[in-house]
Amino acid sequence: MKYCIECGSEKVALEIPEGDNRERFVCQACSYIHYQNPRMICGTIPVFEDKILLCRRAIEPRKGYWTLPAGFMENGETIEEASVRETYEEALAVSVKPQLYSIFSLPHINQVHIFYKCDIKDGKFGAGTETLESALFSLDEIPWDELSFRTVIQCIKHYIEDVKTGVFPVRSESLLLPPQELEEHK
Amino acid sequence: MKYCIECGSEKVALEIPEGDNRERFVCQACSYIHYQNPRMICGTIPVFEDKILLCRRAIEPRKGYWTLPAGFMENGETIEEASVRETYEEALAVSVKPQLYSIFSLPHINQVHIFYKCDIKDGKFGAGTETLESALFSLDEIPWDELSFRTVIQCIKHYIEDVKTGVFPVRSESLLLPPQELEEHK
Repeated sequence: MKYCIECGSEKVALEIPEGDNRERFVCQACSYIHYQNPRMICGTIPVFEDKILLCRRAIEPRKGYWTLPAGFMENGETIEEASVRETYEEALAVSVKPQLYSIFSLPHINQVHIFYKCDIKDGKFGAGTETLESALFSLDEIPWDELSFRTVIQCIKHYIEDVKTGVFPVRSESLLLPPQELEEHK
Repeated sequence: MKYCIECGSEKVALEIPEGDNRERFVCQACSYIHYQNPRMICGTIPVFEDKILLCRRAIEPRKGYWTLPAGFMENGETIEEASVRETYEEALAVSVKPQLYSIFSLPHINQVHIFYKCDIKDGKFGAGTETLESALFSLDEIPWDELSFRTVIQCIKHYIEDVKTGVFPVRSESLLLPPQELEEHK
């Protein structure tokens, strides 16, 4: 936080505003408080004929790794709309029957990741601009060592577990870093 | 958006950045893109001996109306931690066995509201600084006409429905405004 968004002053300092209990970036010139809040990443685990669709990332971070289609939720949309939109943008796949599935809190990076489970309309997919290629993987072919993010790994593990019973409860989980890695992350 | 947070320039304009498909506030001086994303409100529906705990709001909006304890999720916490923290801050109640319960998308105000169901430790509660008073209500005493927000009303309705079966599935719902009200809202 370098300049005040409200008055353009350079005098922005971390302090606890009156009546608050946390440090915020407060403008010393106009008193404007700049709140910062976690962001949501929404996506899907797209399923077609016992296989799941993965996309190989064309962009950093984790360029070249396989991922589930997902991205930042935008203003003006619902979590379901965001998940369905990202599935189309990244995998050119139309989501059918999207169903809320996994929610992950990642407090060390101020993010919440939300995945829907969905079918793929007509089994059609492709590669959007942020994707090198997309492919369907059967559950015993998942490229575990080439997956992009921990939430993607966890979501696929949930799915493999739940597909045995055919029941897909909504799961909520916190992915915390072990203390030493948290230290490095700071 | 009046000034660039990165360079302090007043030349901030709405435009679609290269490779993007939405308007963002982009600084014409330094090219910094100011992304804006939905925010999360986390809270609980606290239960004690077949009653639920409501708080009467001491602050705007909806000052004087009854609400479930909830507030903006902060950086560095999980959705469960945020929900439990808000329950203590607003109702001085310690959450026991918090369980993810209802998720509401409110695209017209760029918010997602998340409620956990929890018990109240030792049945103890009080009023935090943002609360005029707290009270337990049995399910046939809910002050429907004096409730604060639509998501609070919906969450309580879910609970009344689910308590009959004793099964409390995670529910996800979008609360959209009818077209004419959306127009007024803009």
